[in-house]
Amino acid sequence: MGVVVQNIRRADRSAADAFAKYGVATVHEAQARTGLLAVRIKSIHVGAHISGTAVTVSVPPADNWMIHVAVEQCQEGDILVVAPTSPSCAGYFGELLATALMARGVRGLVIDAGCRDVAQLTRMGFPVWSRCVSATGTVKETLGDVNVPVVCAGQWIEPGDVIVADDDGVVVVARRKAAEVLEASRLRKEKEAVSRKRYKAGELSLDVHGMREGLAQKGLTYVGQAPKD
Amino acid sequence: MGVVVQNIRRADRSAADAFAKYGVATVHEAQARTGLLAVRIKSIHVGAHISGTAVTVSVPPADNWMIHVAVEQCQEGDILVVAPTSPSCAGYFGELLATALMARGVRGLVIDAGCRDVAQLTRMGFPVWSRCVSATGTVKETLGDVNVPVVCAGQWIEPGDVIVADDDGVVVVARRKAAEVLEASRLRKEKEAVSRKRYKAGELSLDVHGMREGLAQKGLTYVGQAPKD
Amino acid sequence: MGVVVQNIRRADRSAADAFAKYGVATVHEAQARTGLLAVRIKSIHVGAHISGTAVTVSVPPADNWMIHVAVEQCQEGDILVVAPTSPSCAGYFGELLATALMARGVRGLVIDAGCRDVAQLTRMGFPVWSRCVSATGTVKETLGDVNVPVVCAGQWIEPGDVIVADDDGVVVVARRKAAEVLEASRLRKEKEAVSRKRYKAGELSLDVHGMREGLAQKGLTYVGQAPKD
Amino acid sequence: MGVVVQNIRRADRSAADAFAKYGVATVHEAQARTGLLAVRIKSIHVGAHISGTAVTVSVPPADNWMIHVAVEQCQEGDILVVAPTSPSCAGYFGELLATALMARGVRGLVIDAGCRDVAQLTRMGFPVWSRCVSATGTVKETLGDVNVPVVCAGQWIEPGDVIVADDDGVVVVARRKAAEVLEASRLRKEKEAVSRKRYKAGELSLDVHGMREGLAQKGLTYVGQAPKD
Amino acid sequence: MGVVVQNIRRADRSAADAFAKYGVATVHEAQARTGLLAVRIKSIHVGAHISGTAVTVSVPPADNWMIHVAVEQCQEGDILVVAPTSPSCAGYFGELLATALMARGVRGLVIDAGCRDVAQLTRMGFPVWSRCVSATGTVKETLGDVNVPVVCAGQWIEPGDVIVADDDGVVVVARRKAAEVLEASRLRKEKEAVSRKRYKAGELSLDVHGMREGLAQKGLTYVGQAPKD
Amino acid sequence: MGVVVQNIRRADRSAADAFAKYGVATVHEAQARTGLLAVRIKSIHVGAHISGTAVTVSVPPADNWMIHVAVEQCQEGDILVVAPTSPSCAGYFGELLATALMARGVRGLVIDAGCRDVAQLTRMGFPVWSRCVSATGTVKETLGDVNVPVVCAGQWIEPGDVIVADDDGVVVVARRKAAEVLEASRLRKEKEAVSRKRYKAGELSLDVHGMREGLAQKGLTYVGQAPKD
Repeated sequence: MGVVVQNIRRADRSAADAFAKYGVATVHEAQARTGLLAVRIKSIHVGAHISGTAVTVSVPPADNWMIHVAVEQCQEGDILVVAPTSPSCAGYFGELLATALMARGVRGLVIDAGCRDVAQLTRMGFPVWSRCVSATGTVKETLGDVNVPVVCAGQWIEPGDVIVADDDGVVVVARRKAAEVLEASRLRKEKEAVSRKRYKAGELSLDVHGMREGLAQKGLTYVGQAPKD
Repeated sequence: MGVVVQNIRRADRSAADAFAKYGVATVHEAQARTGLLAVRIKSIHVGAHISGTAVTVSVPPADNWMIHVAVEQCQEGDILVVAPTSPSCAGYFGELLATALMARGVRGLVIDAGCRDVAQLTRMGFPVWSRCVSATGTVKETLGDVNVPVVCAGQWIEPGDVIVADDDGVVVVARRKAAEVLEASRLRKEKEAVSRKRYKAGELSLDVHGMREGLAQKGLTYVGQAPKD
Repeated sequence: MGVVVQNIRRADRSAADAFAKYGVATVHEAQARTGLLAVRIKSIHVGAHISGTAVTVSVPPADNWMIHVAVEQCQEGDILVVAPTSPSCAGYFGELLATALMARGVRGLVIDAGCRDVAQLTRMGFPVWSRCVSATGTVKETLGDVNVPVVCAGQWIEPGDVIVADDDGVVVVARRKAAEVLEASRLRKEKEAVSRKRYKAGELSLDVHGMREGLAQKGLTYVGQAPKD
Repeated sequence: MGVVVQNIRRADRSAADAFAKYGVATVHEAQARTGLLAVRIKSIHVGAHISGTAVTVSVPPADNWMIHVAVEQCQEGDILVVAPTSPSCAGYFGELLATALMARGVRGLVIDAGCRDVAQLTRMGFPVWSRCVSATGTVKETLGDVNVPVVCAGQWIEPGDVIVADDDGVVVVARRKAAEVLEASRLRKEKEAVSRKRYKAGELSLDVHGMREGLAQKGLTYVGQAPKD
Repeated sequence: MGVVVQNIRRADRSAADAFAKYGVATVHEAQARTGLLAVRIKSIHVGAHISGTAVTVSVPPADNWMIHVAVEQCQEGDILVVAPTSPSCAGYFGELLATALMARGVRGLVIDAGCRDVAQLTRMGFPVWSRCVSATGTVKETLGDVNVPVVCAGQWIEPGDVIVADDDGVVVVARRKAAEVLEASRLRKEKEAVSRKRYKAGELSLDVHGMREGLAQKGLTYVGQAPKD
Repeated sequence: MGVVVQNIRRADRSAADAFAKYGVATVHEAQARTGLLAVRIKSIHVGAHISGTAVTVSVPPADNWMIHVAVEQCQEGDILVVAPTSPSCAGYFGELLATALMARGVRGLVIDAGCRDVAQLTRMGFPVWSRCVSATGTVKETLGDVNVPVVCAGQWIEPGDVIVADDDGVVVVARRKAAEVLEASRLRKEKEAVSRKRYKAGELSLDVHGMREGLAQKGLTYVGQAPKD
């Protein structure tokens, strides 16, 4: 513990930025249903939707010292990812740290712990996905690490990986797979657009996707008559 | 398992529609405090308020195949009610299925499991009450049932029953009791209007509802003096 | 049980009112990180922010009779604080009681239990911090107490104490410490303004607050080179 | 509310008794994975395993009056099933009520709420499956119902249905399906005995149940070599 | 913060010791259903049952330094009561601290946080009631207080109060009320013995406690005939 | 997905076996407080304590097909580690699979999901650490992976890593660090033995570990006199 890795390799900037066109559900599907953070991580604002490159922070319970250290490692287009070494709902993060991050072009925070100053963060337009909202303060006593791989809300995240976050939650895309998953997301969205159009016109997914035969093979039975009163 | 009941009897349309004038709390009181779904079922939008007739779906954990089957059974004025056979927070439902349901005039979804695409669902104005929000996908492998009675979030719901849902939660009214409960809701609302007016004028519920005597009989004691500093 | 204390001593009015200028996180820090209610107490409205003097109510599970009793004890500038004697998510409070409280100038409700009529409460602009939202009704059968000290969401609250509540949660300030904590909050806010300005200009908290030496003493190590691909 | 149904039809006694030879998991499988109560219902004793016929009780939150009423409706071989109309962890049940039930030959209690006197209940050998253990008392103020159908921990239970409970949880078998499910349980157990013997001898389920082909068809790939150090 | 109060006044020793004859449920009832700690506090051993005088400790999250300080303040017959200032499941306490406490005659620990070394604590026979079991370690960086009043699991506990704990949970009795509550517990237990004898003989609580009239007045209706098959 | 890695590298056998002499708390401390699985993973038996080498399985929600595949990859001294790709409490594992694993010398199971047949598993002496106990069945429809790295209950676990599990929970030790952490565990245990002996003799940790000076520097104050009655 107590290591800060500088000069990390980040996912390709244009790919990392382009992910913001796709929802978390789409990206999650596009990479074979992997990478989704636990649903306890929720947006504090309705409607936020960002993508960027992860700067990771491993923090002790109820101690936010390393977040201050991590700010210096952040660049334009990054998203800060904070994972406590044991569960904590303390308020590690508030509007002062958000001010510092915004000054460096950081796009948002994902934290498997608590944040505070929710009203100000909303006014500032700084998006946060957190496990809890809590005014509880933290101490600055014990070291952690910056830019080491972390498990955050059940997912392995390496520094420089792509993070995508919206109202549905947060998904991580491995740095080296960014281009491939981006393309798969694009294709999936196109395919969905076709389905959407047909559904809007009143077609059934049973027909659009040819499900009737499979259902019949499994033994699905239609009963024509409702039970009597 | 694997049964789809067609041509169900629905509650009287005008009654089912009229319930949307009454809040869930009012309807719940009007039917002797029964029928309320567990509080884990929450609206994904602030301010949604609907009523309609239930089309029920019993689904396996993390498998949304039967929701596709259920779409075909839906009519104008229905509300889809989905109950997993064992607890699941998977994202069974998103904007594509909502598009299909809106094309058939369905008013909303109540699901004791997860939904996703929350931002799009909000933009589309399709109301959803769910247990969780999760981008997790589901498979299409195992049959369930459509339009059989289900237990959803702790309540017994039969196809064709009336569902009322608002920011307070979701309540079910049995099909055959719809007219009676609607009238009781109307009466309750009238009565509340009288109380509201008197409270606004500064009268106390202790006096408006004559509670003082009952309280005194139970032994309520007023102490005139605050304890000294 | 069954005691109503009248004529309680309230915290100084101007102090109680002035707290609304400070966020819950600021006040909590200003009184040495004490007094914060458990994070399960959440605002039903985004953006509410109030301060006032506590009128306390101890209620039995699923029984709201004593809230009716408490209304009479409320004055302009009060906040009602309700604690059940054992955990309950029943809907103790709705828009009728809110109407009665608004008629007396009460600023809001803090309840470690359920409330209902959320949509109406929002339209009325009556702020509520509650443990749950539930349309479940309550009975009026058993006595409790008004204006006795209570433990609410893990904090000891005496009648007349100052309550401050915003999107981050709820904090209590002891009546006799109101002036002192108010001044400490003011100082803390001033200090934060200085930090905020320097952070906006791109300065790092590591430098603004001189953290580098302490970190180095604990053994923090900077590694210049990212691991190879 | 306020109805006590007397002289209910119970499932066949010998069938109800014979279920105690089968574990909850076996019975649940034998009836096509239906009827399992929510996992929040846990045994207070390690090793209890009973079956019997349900006497059902619908109780208000934190009010155990109707359990006293229900005792009179119980017979040798019954299991008391208690469901609150809204969630409660109050201690509805303790050793005095257990004494009364044992005097009537009742085999145990299933309650989606709290029980207390756990140490005495264990010494008495009276099995209880409950949602919580809590010494919190209840009142005797409000009516409920005895021997009406209830939803208990997510399952629809009718008076006279068979209840089977062990360390894995609780399952309900509909009265009219008791004989059929009992036979299916017997067959399943026999089949499991064959598998068990083969597994003990070192055979793999992949071979015993011929899974290899299905796995290969789905695309399962065996990689012979571990990644290098 | 950072205060250790020495030479606290303890409840009368013989009264504090005598409470161990009464279960937590009995004591809770005997003091008008007050003083029960939240049900999240559970015994790590089946069958432990103790009473004693509280030595209280207020600890920061994930920091057990003050427990070491508190050991010195403990005497024969005490029970250590530990409350974190914000929620934590860290493992504050293990067998080494238990060894130190046993050497001073301390009877057990009540902690609204985590403990560890459960197997050794069981072998040593040192009873612990905790919120969680967790091997997570704690730091020794920040001060707290010893022998100040604390809110522990929702109850106000003053140093020297009586603590009673068994498999049902934990209850606190105020120091000055110890004698009175002890006598009320004794009376309640005697009364229960009479009921128990009559219940064993097959009498119904409806008759023993004369409930039939009250039930009839509320409108309880007996229906003689079960619904037809 | 759909990969089975054969012939994995396991941690040194004698080291993996020797860890069973040390408790989970000791090992966790010995590797700088890392590697502890989330506290939701609990033993189904009191008193189990094992160590061994991990065979990892990544499974879909409510689908246990891959556990059948994994059995074949297990050897004497292994511990099966199962992580669902999204949260599930289904009963993935019961006594039949345990029989198959015991036939291959597997020492136990760690699963971040449900198990069933708890009574039989206890009688067989097959230890399981699971997130829930549930009789819910699973399907065999979708592939997962065997012997790929998984995140299980918040920890990154690679095939062949050492797993240590006891009543306090589960900890993972990286394969390549096994010898080093084993030695650190041994040293820690020796050191604890010295402390234990001194504590038993009545010495205080304040003195044994020289904490008094540090406490005084932080400002700890001893107050000699209890507050007056």
